[in-house]
Amino acid sequence: MATDIEIARATRLRPIAEIAARAGIPADALEPYGRYKAKVGLDFVRSVEDRPEGALVLVTGINPTPAGEGKTTTTIGLGDALNALGQRTLICLREPSLGPCFGLKGGATGGGRAQVAPMEEINLHFTGDFHAITAANNLLAAMVDNHLYWGNELGLDPRRITWRRAIDMNDRALRSIVTSLGGAANGFPREDGFDITVASEVMAVFCLARDFDDLRDRLGRMVVGTRRDGSMVRASDLKADGAMAALLRDALQPNLVQTLEGSPALVHGGPFANIAHGCNSLQATRLGMRLADIVVTEAGFGADLGGEKFLDIKCRVEKIAPSCAVVVATLRALKMHGGVAKSALGREDPAAVARGVVNLVRHVENMGKFGLPVLVALNRFTSDTDAEIAVVQEAMARLGTQAYLCTHWSDGAAGATDLARAVLERIGAHTARYHPLYPDEMKLAEKIRTIAREIYRAADVSLPPAVVKKLAAWEAAGFGHVPVCIAKTQYSFSADPTQLGAPEGHVLPVRDVRLSAGAGFVVAICGDIMTMPGLPRVPAAEAISLSADGLIDGLF
Amino acid sequence: MATDIEIARATRLRPIAEIAARAGIPADALEPYGRYKAKVGLDFVRSVEDRPEGALVLVTGINPTPAGEGKTTTTIGLGDALNALGQRTLICLREPSLGPCFGLKGGATGGGRAQVAPMEEINLHFTGDFHAITAANNLLAAMVDNHLYWGNELGLDPRRITWRRAIDMNDRALRSIVTSLGGAANGFPREDGFDITVASEVMAVFCLARDFDDLRDRLGRMVVGTRRDGSMVRASDLKADGAMAALLRDALQPNLVQTLEGSPALVHGGPFANIAHGCNSLQATRLGMRLADIVVTEAGFGADLGGEKFLDIKCRVEKIAPSCAVVVATLRALKMHGGVAKSALGREDPAAVARGVVNLVRHVENMGKFGLPVLVALNRFTSDTDAEIAVVQEAMARLGTQAYLCTHWSDGAAGATDLARAVLERIGAHTARYHPLYPDEMKLAEKIRTIAREIYRAADVSLPPAVVKKLAAWEAAGFGHVPVCIAKTQYSFSADPTQLGAPEGHVLPVRDVRLSAGAGFVVAICGDIMTMPGLPRVPAAEAISLSADGLIDGLF
Repeated sequence: MATDIEIARATRLRPIAEIAARAGIPADALEPYGRYKAKVGLDFVRSVEDRPEGALVLVTGINPTPAGEGKTTTTIGLGDALNALGQRTLICLREPSLGPCFGLKGGATGGGRAQVAPMEEINLHFTGDFHAITAANNLLAAMVDNHLYWGNELGLDPRRITWRRAIDMNDRALRSIVTSLGGAANGFPREDGFDITVASEVMAVFCLARDFDDLRDRLGRMVVGTRRDGSMVRASDLKADGAMAALLRDALQPNLVQTLEGSPALVHGGPFANIAHGCNSLQATRLGMRLADIVVTEAGFGADLGGEKFLDIKCRVEKIAPSCAVVVATLRALKMHGGVAKSALGREDPAAVARGVVNLVRHVENMGKFGLPVLVALNRFTSDTDAEIAVVQEAMARLGTQAYLCTHWSDGAAGATDLARAVLERIGAHTARYHPLYPDEMKLAEKIRTIAREIYRAADVSLPPAVVKKLAAWEAAGFGHVPVCIAKTQYSFSADPTQLGAPEGHVLPVRDVRLSAGAGFVVAICGDIMTMPGLPRVPAAEAISLSADGLIDGLF
Repeated sequence: MATDIEIARATRLRPIAEIAARAGIPADALEPYGRYKAKVGLDFVRSVEDRPEGALVLVTGINPTPAGEGKTTTTIGLGDALNALGQRTLICLREPSLGPCFGLKGGATGGGRAQVAPMEEINLHFTGDFHAITAANNLLAAMVDNHLYWGNELGLDPRRITWRRAIDMNDRALRSIVTSLGGAANGFPREDGFDITVASEVMAVFCLARDFDDLRDRLGRMVVGTRRDGSMVRASDLKADGAMAALLRDALQPNLVQTLEGSPALVHGGPFANIAHGCNSLQATRLGMRLADIVVTEAGFGADLGGEKFLDIKCRVEKIAPSCAVVVATLRALKMHGGVAKSALGREDPAAVARGVVNLVRHVENMGKFGLPVLVALNRFTSDTDAEIAVVQEAMARLGTQAYLCTHWSDGAAGATDLARAVLERIGAHTARYHPLYPDEMKLAEKIRTIAREIYRAADVSLPPAVVKKLAAWEAAGFGHVPVCIAKTQYSFSADPTQLGAPEGHVLPVRDVRLSAGAGFVVAICGDIMTMPGLPRVPAAEAISLSADGLIDGLF
């Protein structure tokens, strides 16, 4: 069987200007980055703002398992299939983070016949957006410590600095550090740490910024810490916002690439879906909806995390409404939700599917709570049996929907034609009545409770007194209207990653809350959430190589 | 008076393919990065390897002072002037480091009418080379700590890890840190620190690598630390070399931009000239010498640091021989070497020039020790007087050379025509007999002594017993043949930054030595050398802004 990179290399890519033309982007709006990647100028993005909006299709998934679900491949395969059916379709994806490429999982550009290309370049530095975000994050950090060094005129409490440094690398050694050691010339020692770049508030701000002014304003509003009296110190107080925005200028332009089947794809921005809102940039989605009849886009992790945040944060900020949601699953993953170990997934086990399908059922129900029609994409493996598939179909029929069998991984667009036709039918029926789960004016604690109750099916939420106090202070300071962004494990509806399937009656433990004043949401941290991953015992990096003629191997 | 950025914006840049054609680079060898920057494919670089070599002109300077000398502007102005005289000329420069842009000095793309463009992009992220170098450096660091975390099979002594992390930011808080705090999940706490990216050995390796295989081999040879028995652990032992090389693949292609007068310029690589060898990449210089009749290139800081290293390290490794050296000075800087304060530089003071010209005289003599004809470029300020200029000319006449008055800053190519004609005359006379200062087979300690005696005019070198022991160990391990790279202050011939002019009789204190086994040199650290700068009280970043239509201001 050919590897992803072998399939990608065997495909002849088209010049990016040709892909742009297919998407309706004129050549003079392109800033090429090599031959197969380009940025789309924001002047052009602005120039199409008044066009009517195309339909938006959200691809989301069940809670991820080690068996894999194939959400990115489904987004790509569905986009390819819609294009093949003659629909003018754009695919909007997140940019991969560099760090995880060297850890466990390899790249994040799809797989098989459903990939975006050039995969090595997208997975490594791409057009430099994440490096720009890292630099902007760390310029602010350097300016914070520099401010302390030169006398701390703003009166920052060095123990209450909340702005952390960032790096696009899986490096557990940097999670918790002490800086400014070595004497007076190096400043005042304090506790600090690095988050992975996708967890930086700069990433979230970048993905939600409407234009350059909004970008700079959001950056300026970001809180770096507090004074002893509890008052906030912001990036604008340090006069860091202008230089940070300048660092992000080129990055803010959406990136255009192509799928292996020649569909245009905008790959731009990539905030973590656990600590942040988990979807691609507003710039890219907005551009796509003005250019195409249909935009297919993906949200990170399961529908309880990335899906909910896409609908409650991004759609709310951008005032966009999806036409339908596609929930992706595999029988193998459903078996794991039904308690089967990864090693036993090859064995036929309809009973396990029946135990695990409750996870899928609940996600389908949940998406309906936002007023969306919901379809299911079932990515096929050769070991899947008819009896197992029947279990899923019966469960879906009870919900008034259907699972579409997909083989785009091996067959490309042709493998997602049924799904594409069903999506078209739902778009054409105009049955979507999108609304966010909760209104802006709901109290912050009640927003958390609403998500916990409606989406996670928790019996209760535990809010420590310190958290209640913080939320009240932010409401008093005028932040009561913002949405909440729940940071919790992606593996379960609950905050306990071992509770697979469809747990009920659990209590959502809100450990802490953080104000992302620039991004415009309150993060509720539930359980242990990692903002800096580590490398495994044998990192993927060990197998990556560069040949004498410049071919990269080992990125899979 | 127009600022640099105003002058740059008022200039209509040509499409990069047109500049490439002027340089003899076909369009299909270009990887465009936006409209005015491109990388030149290494396939093309290889394809011209057998062509005859053009002449190489080294632009170097006196010891830098706060008055400014204008080495980069002279390199650009001379290149423009040679092109204007009908000579097919390429300019080779270093890439600016991002960190210092936010500190004191603003950009590093020349000034006035002698600039490379687009200046904002070159000064900020350019084509991402430094970000790739930072990522490669930090991948290795993460793999080192990850190796300790998972059991330390290689037996690294955690107290003797020499590989540091890197960031392209002026951030003194990161000079000295303790990592892996916070409990067992975060690893084993140890002392560490960040260097600025230009000080990373990866930067030096990148600039000296001949091809992809050489790049990977050099990366693999880099030493990350030692075991308790003193034996070295290398990047290849951690299997990090392949992934690091993959991260650097695209970066290794030279970057093509243009001067404001439309001359092609290769801007590629940029190691610090104090801790590393201080000149642009071998790839760029090699390509330039195959394409052009003349390559004008620059080395960092004064001729005692960057100039010496260019001639003793880069020319030795690459087996190239310059045709002449140009030493850049200003009367204002010479007055500072003569003891005048910066505030008093506007006053005519031929006596101060006479006291300070000894610095220039010694650099001119020193360049002659490498067998090169030497010219002097005197960058004019309006406050310069004839009497002051006469002092310099008399001193130069005694050395058998001449100072050429240059006004390319205000006049562009026309302001460096005299200098260009003199350079052409020297090239045509074929009088250069380049040789490095010392042979490969000289003992390491003797190489240090030779540079100290011949270039710095030190009376002696102090080598602590620990240093002598290390050098002997490295000679025994087969590293005796490598050149030495002296890390010392750029402000003086001595290791004391306050000793301006032409100090004599001083002792060069070698504090420590480090083996850069991948770059292929031994670094001798003399006095206090900073590998991570800090930001000033009012960082330049505070004045940088981004307008609503995407214009960056405040980068000067």
